[in-house]
Amino acid sequence: MTKMAGAVDGGKFAVEISRISTDNPTETTLDALAVEEPLEIRLGLGRGHRPVSITMRTPGHDPELAAGFLFTEGILKSPTAVRAIKHCGKFPRNRNTIRVDVADDFDADLGKLDRHFYTTSSCGVCGKTSLEALATGARPLERPDFPSIDPKIVHRLPETLRAGQSVFDETGGLHAAALFETDGRLTLLREDVGRHNAVDKLIGAMFLENKLPLADKILFLSGRASFELLQKAVMAGIPIVCAVGAPSSLAVEAAREFGVTLLGFVRDRRFNVYAGGERIN
Amino acid sequence: MTKMAGAVDGGKFAVEISRISTDNPTETTLDALAVEEPLEIRLGLGRGHRPVSITMRTPGHDPELAAGFLFTEGILKSPTAVRAIKHCGKFPRNRNTIRVDVADDFDADLGKLDRHFYTTSSCGVCGKTSLEALATGARPLERPDFPSIDPKIVHRLPETLRAGQSVFDETGGLHAAALFETDGRLTLLREDVGRHNAVDKLIGAMFLENKLPLADKILFLSGRASFELLQKAVMAGIPIVCAVGAPSSLAVEAAREFGVTLLGFVRDRRFNVYAGGERIN
Repeated sequence: MTKMAGAVDGGKFAVEISRISTDNPTETTLDALAVEEPLEIRLGLGRGHRPVSITMRTPGHDPELAAGFLFTEGILKSPTAVRAIKHCGKFPRNRNTIRVDVADDFDADLGKLDRHFYTTSSCGVCGKTSLEALATGARPLERPDFPSIDPKIVHRLPETLRAGQSVFDETGGLHAAALFETDGRLTLLREDVGRHNAVDKLIGAMFLENKLPLADKILFLSGRASFELLQKAVMAGIPIVCAVGAPSSLAVEAAREFGVTLLGFVRDRRFNVYAGGERIN
Repeated sequence: MTKMAGAVDGGKFAVEISRISTDNPTETTLDALAVEEPLEIRLGLGRGHRPVSITMRTPGHDPELAAGFLFTEGILKSPTAVRAIKHCGKFPRNRNTIRVDVADDFDADLGKLDRHFYTTSSCGVCGKTSLEALATGARPLERPDFPSIDPKIVHRLPETLRAGQSVFDETGGLHAAALFETDGRLTLLREDVGRHNAVDKLIGAMFLENKLPLADKILFLSGRASFELLQKAVMAGIPIVCAVGAPSSLAVEAAREFGVTLLGFVRDRRFNVYAGGERIN
C-alpha cells in the first residue's frame, strides 16, 4: 500500500489535481485538502487501558477532543478525574491513538462503554428514548439564570467566525464550531472534518480548564444543527446555540425540552428562533 | 416529557418559529424541519436477535438503510442471506427498530459486530490502518472495465439532482445522494439528515435487488466526500464518485488506492479531478 504523495501542513494536505471547466482549458494544479485521519480514544485505568471510540477527525487538539468526547458521553465527570492525556507512541508516527488516564478512584459508569444501545424493555426506540437517555446525564437549563442577547450581536457572529477560519478558506472541507461571549467576542474556535469533533474540541478545552458549565456562552455552528450537537451543548450547559444551517426535528425537540435557545439559518442578517426565544431581546 | 407540537408529513415536521431580520419586522410562522429519529438495526439469527447499530436518520426506506449498512460494514454478503427485514412492533409506534433476519446457515463474521476497533499489535492506528481495514472486504476496481464519461454529463448532474430533491427545498436540512447512469440519467435518489444514511439507502436498495456491484454507476453526493462515503462506494463497486463539496485527504487516498474516480466541487459547470482521471474524456 503506497502512501499518497503530498505534503501535510497544519490541517491541510496538498495534492496534485486537474481542474476541468466549460470556460477554461484543463489545468493541473496543487489543491489543499482538509486532513482526515482516525483517532482511537483509549481510557487508561490503573495499569490497563481499553479502547472507547474511533472517530475520523482532523489532527490537532486531540487531548481536548478526547476529553470533550468522554465528558459529553457522560464517562468523565470532572477534570480532577484526569491524571494525564497523551498520545501513545512517538509523534508523529503514532499520533492517532490517544490515552486518557484517570485517577485510581475513578468511579464512572464503565458500563456506558459497552452499552452502545438504548436499553428498552420492548423492541422499541424513538426520539423520546434519545431525549430520555440525555436526561439521565443532564438537567434542563434554568432560564432565568441567563442574560438575554441582542439580535444585532447574533447578526455579527457569522462574519466573526469566518474571519477566524483559516483552513476552511483554503480547503472548503472543514466544519467550524466556536464559543462566543454574549457581547459577541470570540472565545474559542475549532475546525474539523467532523462537526461533532469540532464541538468536542471546544467543550473539552473548557472542561480541562474546569470552566464548565458554560452558562454564559453561545455555541456557534458553521453547518446544520443535529440532535447530537444539541446533546453536547446540553451536557456542557450552553444556553444558546446558533447554526448557519437548518436544525433537525429532534434538535429542536431537545432544545425545547432542555431549555436551550436554538437559532437556525443565522446568516445574511437574519435568523429563525426555534426554541427559547425569551433570551432574545 | 412532552411531545413537541407539530405535524409530521413525509420527511418533514412543521413547527412554529419566529423569523428575525434587520430588514423586516419579526414574524411568527410555520417552518418545515427535516425529521431526525434514531433507528436501531438488529440482526435476527434463528430465534434471537441482537442490536448492531443505532443511527440518527430521517424515517423512510428503513429496510434499504439497514441492508445497505450491513452490506457496507461487511456483515451481509448477499441478498440471498436475508430472510426478512421488518420493523419491530406496529407502525407507527415502533417504527424506529428494524430487524434483519438472516438464513440459518448465515456464516458472516459476527465478530465484526463486536470489533468496533481496529486490531493493532502496537498501540497505533492511522489512515493506513483504515485503508487496510477496507482492503479486507473490498478489492480495487479494475479500471479497464469501465467506460469513460464526458465532462458535459458531469456538469449536468447537480441540476438533475436538485430537481429531484423535494424535501431539501423546503427544510434545507437534508443531505442527498444519488446513483446516475453514465449517460447522466438519474437512477435513484435518497435524502437523509445523515449523509452516510442516504448512501446506505441507495446501496441497500440495489443490494436487495441483487444489482451489486454497481460497476456502471456514478454516485453523486450533495455535500463533502469523507473516507466513510468512499468506503461505501468501494464496497458497492461504484467506479465514479462526484461530490458538490470538498473531499478529505483520506477520501482522496482511498479513491486512489481502490481505483475510484473522485470528482469534487462539482458545481457551476466545473469540477476538480482528485483521482482516476483516466475515466474522464
